[in-house]
Amino acid sequence: MKELKATVPLKIRFSEVDSMNIVWHGSYVMYFEDAREAFGKKYGLAYLDIFGNGFFAPLVDLSFKYKSPITYDMKPEITITYKPVDAAKIVFDYEITNPENGDVLATGHSVQVFMDLNYQLVWTNPDFYEEWKKRWFD
Amino acid sequence: MKELKATVPLKIRFSEVDSMNIVWHGSYVMYFEDAREAFGKKYGLAYLDIFGNGFFAPLVDLSFKYKSPITYDMKPEITITYKPVDAAKIVFDYEITNPENGDVLATGHSVQVFMDLNYQLVWTNPDFYEEWKKRWFD
Amino acid sequence: MKELKATVPLKIRFSEVDSMNIVWHGSYVMYFEDAREAFGKKYGLAYLDIFGNGFFAPLVDLSFKYKSPITYDMKPEITITYKPVDAAKIVFDYEITNPENGDVLATGHSVQVFMDLNYQLVWTNPDFYEEWKKRWFD
Amino acid sequence: MKELKATVPLKIRFSEVDSMNIVWHGSYVMYFEDAREAFGKKYGLAYLDIFGNGFFAPLVDLSFKYKSPITYDMKPEITITYKPVDAAKIVFDYEITNPENGDVLATGHSVQVFMDLNYQLVWTNPDFYEEWKKRWFD
Repeated sequence: MKELKATVPLKIRFSEVDSMNIVWHGSYVMYFEDAREAFGKKYGLAYLDIFGNGFFAPLVDLSFKYKSPITYDMKPEITITYKPVDAAKIVFDYEITNPENGDVLATGHSVQVFMDLNYQLVWTNPDFYEEWKKRWFD
Repeated sequence: MKELKATVPLKIRFSEVDSMNIVWHGSYVMYFEDAREAFGKKYGLAYLDIFGNGFFAPLVDLSFKYKSPITYDMKPEITITYKPVDAAKIVFDYEITNPENGDVLATGHSVQVFMDLNYQLVWTNPDFYEEWKKRWFD
Repeated sequence: MKELKATVPLKIRFSEVDSMNIVWHGSYVMYFEDAREAFGKKYGLAYLDIFGNGFFAPLVDLSFKYKSPITYDMKPEITITYKPVDAAKIVFDYEITNPENGDVLATGHSVQVFMDLNYQLVWTNPDFYEEWKKRWFD
Repeated sequence: MKELKATVPLKIRFSEVDSMNIVWHGSYVMYFEDAREAFGKKYGLAYLDIFGNGFFAPLVDLSFKYKSPITYDMKPEITITYKPVDAAKIVFDYEITNPENGDVLATGHSVQVFMDLNYQLVWTNPDFYEEWKKRWFD
């Protein structure tokens, strides 16, 4: 099956380096957000696409595995991979690597659900999302 | 003239300490926000009071003077002082001190204006704010 | 077996509320950090205790389950529970609840390992940590 | 006199948009940091250049004027301009604009001083900085 992926360079800010001289674990939340955003732009599933169709897509699961510290002088990149599921969910895997040596620095996973604009959870795939899936996977 | 003030302890998070082992300069934005929030609760001018009256109060000016670094082991406190002006603005001064020795660690200043819920700037004092001022200064 | 726990109120900043009018998912990283800090102070396992014994304790696993959104008007609290393991790790479970109605708003989990000050992973429990465990669990 | 400047696009994250649907005022701290970083790379005055010469350059003054809100759909850019002074300081002006219509969205100013690695303030220009100034302004 076709795999939908996007890879973006991580921009490490000096202020993201903590007093251990490594990137603070909380910064990865933003790196994952950047990856979702890049994916959304590449494949037409950005926040504004979802919102424009009358939905929010809040996170319900988010996890990080920190394999090796990121330091300020690294030029890591993050790859986000879409994981197809039948349920009304958007599921992604993430991998942060150091392209200079191929090291995997971190991995992660996220699950988003759909809420309508009245904050009610939507249990079936919204039409626009069904169509989006068809476009890319049929 | 009466002075309206509030003083709150600063809670320093380990993650706010940067690789110079001092509190990152950007964290003071949050400390000032905490001070405004404490002031708002004490004197009835919290975000929800303003919003409940049909207004936002976005910042238009914000400045910081960093006098002496804050380290993780300090127990600083911040004092916010309301500065009355005639214009339709909310103006505050801030001072962060180390109560153990009286050192002034930082000072600052902020100016907020009023916008209605259509994001239009309001040039005259909203009624609720006039009443608020009367309550405290007449 | 004895359970070590700490519960602290969450302080929600207005700036942590996102454009969906709910607390941004990334803010929970800080809430978990606050809980670890409160635990550390209560039981003598704070960052400075660990560092003072010659170690860092970086996170290697961190996960969040967002059950129900947090809004700005809530007064949630977070409970952190120490999960004893034999390996040279510090493992915690987290639960954020709304004390007004008992709702569970989020849960989570973290795993920390020990690194010496040369950033080398430590595979066996440091002496100070063995003693800490004995003090609380024997 | 020659002017040293750098201009970079602002990357606005969805999480930087607050519940007023505009970019949170605190995010500008990071935008200014990005601008300093871009300037440092372009002209050889990056954090690691300064640190490599045995100095920190902490901020002592930082100010923001918010002229017009930034929304998520904008593509603003920030221009940082070096302001030569005789004192042992690094002084920058900042301007955030919307290139689509030329609007100035915000301006700002920062002052950094030099500290040696023992956290002592340095009152005269470090040699490396004198040389840097000569290189660009003589």
